[in-house]
Amino acid sequence: MTKEISQAVIKRMPRYYRYLGELLDDNVERISSRDLSKRMNVTASQIRQDLNNFGGFGQQGYGYNVKFLYEVIGRILGLDQTHNIIVIGAGNLGQALANYVKFEKFGFVITALFDVDPELVGTKVRNIPVHNIDELDEFCKENDVDIAALTLPKSKADTVAHHLVDLGVGAIWNFAHVDLDLREDDVIVENVHLSDSLMRLSYNIVQKKFN
Amino acid sequence: MTKEISQAVIKRMPRYYRYLGELLDDNVERISSRDLSKRMNVTASQIRQDLNNFGGFGQQGYGYNVKFLYEVIGRILGLDQTHNIIVIGAGNLGQALANYVKFEKFGFVITALFDVDPELVGTKVRNIPVHNIDELDEFCKENDVDIAALTLPKSKADTVAHHLVDLGVGAIWNFAHVDLDLREDDVIVENVHLSDSLMRLSYNIVQKKFN
Repeated sequence: MTKEISQAVIKRMPRYYRYLGELLDDNVERISSRDLSKRMNVTASQIRQDLNNFGGFGQQGYGYNVKFLYEVIGRILGLDQTHNIIVIGAGNLGQALANYVKFEKFGFVITALFDVDPELVGTKVRNIPVHNIDELDEFCKENDVDIAALTLPKSKADTVAHHLVDLGVGAIWNFAHVDLDLREDDVIVENVHLSDSLMRLSYNIVQKKFN
Repeated sequence: MTKEISQAVIKRMPRYYRYLGELLDDNVERISSRDLSKRMNVTASQIRQDLNNFGGFGQQGYGYNVKFLYEVIGRILGLDQTHNIIVIGAGNLGQALANYVKFEKFGFVITALFDVDPELVGTKVRNIPVHNIDELDEFCKENDVDIAALTLPKSKADTVAHHLVDLGVGAIWNFAHVDLDLREDDVIVENVHLSDSLMRLSYNIVQKKFN
C-alpha cells in the first residue's frame, strides 16, 4: 500500500505527526478534518485525501481519533523503531545535534561523535563520547549504525560519505554545503542545506522590497 | 520579470548558485547545459528552461558563461546586498550559526546573539556579543535587523516571533520545532525543521527494508 504514496504526501507526514502530537499534549481525543485543516493551514479536502493514503481513519460526524492517527503515522514514519545515529564532526553543529534530547523521543539515538580535533576527542557531549575519526571503521563494525550525520567541511564530506557507504551505513543526514555524489541505490540521503534556506529567505526579502 | 518565477524554480536557484560557485573555484569559464545537467543530476532541458526564466544566458555552441551566470543568480537571490541577522538563543545551534563564517561570504552578517542564560550573556561567539534578551527591543530600535534566527524551545518561539514582528523584523529563520502562527503579509518565514528531515530519512529507511 505505502508504495504508491507520493513524495509530496511523505513531505507533509512529519507535519501531521507534529500537529497530532501537540493535540495529544493538549489532551484532545478527536478532531475533524476541518479543525485540523485550520490548525495546519491546509485545505480540509487535502487532509482527507492525504490521510486516505493510509487507509482513511476518519469517521463521518466523528472526525479522527488523534491518538490512533498519531500512532499510525508514527509507525509509517518508522518512529516505532530505534535508529542509531553517529555524528561525524563534533563542532558546534554536531554538538547541537547531540544535545537535542527530543530526537530520542522519536527513536533516534545518537551513540557516538567523531572528530579529528585532539581537543574534542575524548570529551563527552551529554554523556555521548567523542571518538577519534580513526576509530570509525572499528566502531561501525562493532555497533549498529543506521544513520550518519555529516557536520564537516564540504571538502571532506564526499570522501567520508563514500567511506561510510563502504562500511555499510545505509543513510546519511548531510549538513555539509555540498550535494554528495552517491548512488541512490547504495544509500539514502537527506540534505539540510542551511545556506540554501538562507538564500531563499534573502530572495523573498528582495522580492518583497520591490513589489 | 522575476514575478512570474515559480517557487519550484526558486527552490533550485541556490543549488545552481552552489554549483556555479564550485565551477568558478575550479576556474571553469563556461559550461554547456549538458555538462551542468550531469553535474547537477537534472535534465539539460530543465536547466535551459530554468535559466530562461532569467533571460536565457546560454549561447548555442558556447554554453553558459559561468561567472556571469553566477553573478546574475546571486543578484536575483539578493546576495549582492548585506543582510543583518540576529540569533535568538545562544545555545549550541545558535553558536553553530554564529560560527559559520561562510554565511558572510554571501552577505549574511550575524550582528548579535540573545539569550536568557546568565552564563552565556556577556560572552562572545567569534567576536559576536551575546546580549541579554531584555536588550532585544533597544537593539532592534538602534540597529538594522533584516533577519532573526530562532533557535529556542518551541514553547517560547511563537511569543518571541510575534514580538520580533512588532519590532519591525521582516524575516524569520525558524529552527524551533513548531510552525509559527504568523501572517504571511507581516513577515517572511523560512523553516528548518530538523526533526521533519530525520523523519523523512527514517521513512525511507523503513521503505527500503521492506521493498
